[in-house]
Amino acid sequence: MSFVGAIKAGEADSVVDSEGVTIARAMRERGLDPATIPSAARDDLGVFVELHIEQGSILETEGVPLAVVTTIAGAVHLEVVVTGRPDHAGTTPMDLRRDALAGAAAMIQAVQSIAAALGRPAVATVGRVHVEPDQINVIPGRVTFTVDLRHADMAGRRALEERIRSLCATIASERGLGIDIRTLHERPPVPMDGAVRQVLERAATDAGVSPKALVSGAGHDAQVLAARCQVGMLFVPSIGGRSHCPEESTKPEHLALGTQVLARALELLAY
Amino acid sequence: MSFVGAIKAGEADSVVDSEGVTIARAMRERGLDPATIPSAARDDLGVFVELHIEQGSILETEGVPLAVVTTIAGAVHLEVVVTGRPDHAGTTPMDLRRDALAGAAAMIQAVQSIAAALGRPAVATVGRVHVEPDQINVIPGRVTFTVDLRHADMAGRRALEERIRSLCATIASERGLGIDIRTLHERPPVPMDGAVRQVLERAATDAGVSPKALVSGAGHDAQVLAARCQVGMLFVPSIGGRSHCPEESTKPEHLALGTQVLARALELLAY
Repeated sequence: MSFVGAIKAGEADSVVDSEGVTIARAMRERGLDPATIPSAARDDLGVFVELHIEQGSILETEGVPLAVVTTIAGAVHLEVVVTGRPDHAGTTPMDLRRDALAGAAAMIQAVQSIAAALGRPAVATVGRVHVEPDQINVIPGRVTFTVDLRHADMAGRRALEERIRSLCATIASERGLGIDIRTLHERPPVPMDGAVRQVLERAATDAGVSPKALVSGAGHDAQVLAARCQVGMLFVPSIGGRSHCPEESTKPEHLALGTQVLARALELLAY
Repeated sequence: MSFVGAIKAGEADSVVDSEGVTIARAMRERGLDPATIPSAARDDLGVFVELHIEQGSILETEGVPLAVVTTIAGAVHLEVVVTGRPDHAGTTPMDLRRDALAGAAAMIQAVQSIAAALGRPAVATVGRVHVEPDQINVIPGRVTFTVDLRHADMAGRRALEERIRSLCATIASERGLGIDIRTLHERPPVPMDGAVRQVLERAATDAGVSPKALVSGAGHDAQVLAARCQVGMLFVPSIGGRSHCPEESTKPEHLALGTQVLARALELLAY
């Protein structure tokens, strides 16, 4: 369960996490009162600067030790349900099948191809697949899969989503399959503050580093605080791009560089 | 749990069903003694004739009311494990991924295409898929899927299996993915007895019907009895090709025709 996004009064009953649980319900399950959300808003912050590991492998691949984040990408989570007809795997010729998994496999391929063709920073991922009846000798009658898609700006993200929806519908139609696509979760892209970015770039230059401008594909605290103050972010490289696993690590010299640039940026912002 | 195949003495510990359970274990779990298998063999049978529903839609599609089975197809069940690298769906660009599911989707497409290109009676079905870690925002690191493949003769079945193994290995290699393919279950094709087929065709002709010669994609009792006597099979149409579901049905006139042809065949065989 995770919620990333600026929660405004009244949203607690409509915003859901990736499992479809509303914020209000998640809070009540933990003994918290959703009605107190507005009182948690802070007005004492001028600038919020966040130093984070990249959680990807762009910096390592390009041999750059530091990035200044331009935007935190917006994400959409879709659920796609493909329906065909469950038939006997031995007695149903290939040309008389309505195989939901064969269709879903073509759609999964299409999701990858569309994002790859659009190029960075567009990404699209099918992370979950559920097949019914999930029997070795039965042609799948129903397949449910998820799509996580992200882009740096709303226009790019909408184009990505529209192409995916359109191509999946075409594949279903060509194969005589039913298709239903619903949005599970959506959050807009959050651009970092231009003035703060300039300060971070100057701080990096003062440390002798030419930073890369990078879109963050992952969500971060800065996108929540962006509703209350100016925000900016620094990334240091992740070894092998790994994150959320025991192998997650960053070289000591990159941690030191990130800390040094953060300190210099805070100094520049304070005086 | 189902076992279809002629079980010889000594096979009870090696032959497994589609869940990987040995015959010996399945028998003991039901209070039966595997050592008594040889004593169950019958020597009092001369000919075994089986009347069955098609469980597919070839007869209905072609408007033919009866089939004489030529062969019961051999089946192989494979388990394919594809390994990539689980990475963050937001931070890992499309060109830096090793997505096990993207590879598996290409393989699932290939399995379908190879069988379709070979034409009837070749069939290949991916019925089960398991994705790990199966999270909406994580690139799949490991996918396990099954392949059920069948053909009328050993040469055709081996060609089908070899093409599938080869193309899956190529897809894995091109994408930097690991692949492991193991055989879960295997049974040879069983041809019906030529003399019994001729009697069945004559009995059909006597009933005013020109029967279709058809390969059975499903397993049947006749393939077990083939080890002990001459065997033959008749098929009547399945409405909509449906089987193993509440919709399974056959028109009364087709049931009557099948019974009439079976009776005539038994008469011809007896006298």
